[in-house]
Amino acid sequence: MSMKGLLNIIKVGGGVVEDAASLASLLNQFASMEGRKVLVHGGGRLATAMAASLGIESHMVGGRRITDEKMLQVVTMVYGGLVNKNIVAGLQAKGLQAIGLTGADADIIHSHKRLPKRIKMDDGTEQMVDFGFVGDVDKVNAQPLIQLLESGAVPVIAPLTHDGEGHILNTNADTIAASVACALAEHYDVTLTYCFEKAGVLRDADDDNSVIPSINEDQFQKLASEGIVSGGMIPKLENAFQAIHQGVRQVVITHSDNIDGSRGTTIRK
Amino acid sequence: MSMKGLLNIIKVGGGVVEDAASLASLLNQFASMEGRKVLVHGGGRLATAMAASLGIESHMVGGRRITDEKMLQVVTMVYGGLVNKNIVAGLQAKGLQAIGLTGADADIIHSHKRLPKRIKMDDGTEQMVDFGFVGDVDKVNAQPLIQLLESGAVPVIAPLTHDGEGHILNTNADTIAASVACALAEHYDVTLTYCFEKAGVLRDADDDNSVIPSINEDQFQKLASEGIVSGGMIPKLENAFQAIHQGVRQVVITHSDNIDGSRGTTIRK
Repeated sequence: MSMKGLLNIIKVGGGVVEDAASLASLLNQFASMEGRKVLVHGGGRLATAMAASLGIESHMVGGRRITDEKMLQVVTMVYGGLVNKNIVAGLQAKGLQAIGLTGADADIIHSHKRLPKRIKMDDGTEQMVDFGFVGDVDKVNAQPLIQLLESGAVPVIAPLTHDGEGHILNTNADTIAASVACALAEHYDVTLTYCFEKAGVLRDADDDNSVIPSINEDQFQKLASEGIVSGGMIPKLENAFQAIHQGVRQVVITHSDNIDGSRGTTIRK
Repeated sequence: MSMKGLLNIIKVGGGVVEDAASLASLLNQFASMEGRKVLVHGGGRLATAMAASLGIESHMVGGRRITDEKMLQVVTMVYGGLVNKNIVAGLQAKGLQAIGLTGADADIIHSHKRLPKRIKMDDGTEQMVDFGFVGDVDKVNAQPLIQLLESGAVPVIAPLTHDGEGHILNTNADTIAASVACALAEHYDVTLTYCFEKAGVLRDADDDNSVIPSINEDQFQKLASEGIVSGGMIPKLENAFQAIHQGVRQVVITHSDNIDGSRGTTIRK
């Protein structure tokens, strides 16, 4: 049996964050969880709405946002400011010693700007895509996070990183959650829970009763080739398997009403 | 002689923050300062510009912003996200272990929503003014700040606080700087430096060579009654005197090109 302390990392997506009732329910459940915990949040839909209010169009390729200079300003404001600080204030009101962080704060997540990349488009053609100010994670510095956790603080992490040269970069929140989980797996017995608006990985996207209770990598390949698993679920599952391979004890994909992971889909090697 | 460690608190205003060259110069000087340090920033002009881009009008009374719900969103985004995270990334690039904080983060600054207040208007009449989601500081929790400082971190504080009931509140950055300075004066020998676009407190607002080298409270009363000191300088000086009375060793008001305080105006009891 592991002698490591337990750590729960909860990732909550943009769809939950933008809905006041879902967010309130999520924060209540999160506050009542015992022990060490980290919350990683998205906010993409709010960023899209704020960009629209500023007359800035959002461009997505393969579910990922193209982040030009103006969009970088929007996500820095919305993720690092609006969403992060409201969650922190909400958790403080429940007695948690929440502290909001981007990857730049205390240098917790270093990344580099993604080079233009050949991407398979929806119509089957391939195209070189410049995602702009998007960061691919190089390194998570576990030490400041461990220090915070051991002092009783609860890190609330926004999906922004930095390149160490003064630039904030937009980074996928699922990837941040997996990277932080991997970096902390040496020190803690980590459970990583992805929660969103669905009950888990579904056989039928429209039927919350079709949850697949567990998936291993062979099954994932098969489900993906059959088209049962598709879209944004594919990178989410890739992140999940990467985490399992790097020592994270358990990864669960579940509904935001159920962050204790008692239902949903469990990821196995 | 004091046995306390030294601490420099630098407050930088919105006019410096919005100008890339001034901000770069400020961050360079700040990075090269030795020892423990805290940066408190404003961002009002950027908030006004962002609000305008969103079609939201800014209303100011006596130099203070009326913060309705929409404006609260804007300042939370601009101060807590855009300005704070870009400063943090910029300082990290210079090798500082910067960490961005609002008053909600680690519960460092507790405030309450300001009640409607009788305010003397520019035309001399008095009027009840509801400033909206504006926080008056109740308490600065020194302990998390001391922990960060002693671990070598550099707190970068945005002008936002929280009420402990889940609400972010807009709070004047000069007041935050003074409140943090007072709370830390028990533990450190604190120098508080307000820097902005002018060379100090001026006899002639248009002449940077008319700096008043030092001011005590009697002189302040006289200068205010003569109208030599007016507008936003009055609350800035009131904050400065409050800090001196509460044990802050030195308060300096100076140009952002001169944050070592070798020129500018020194505040005396």
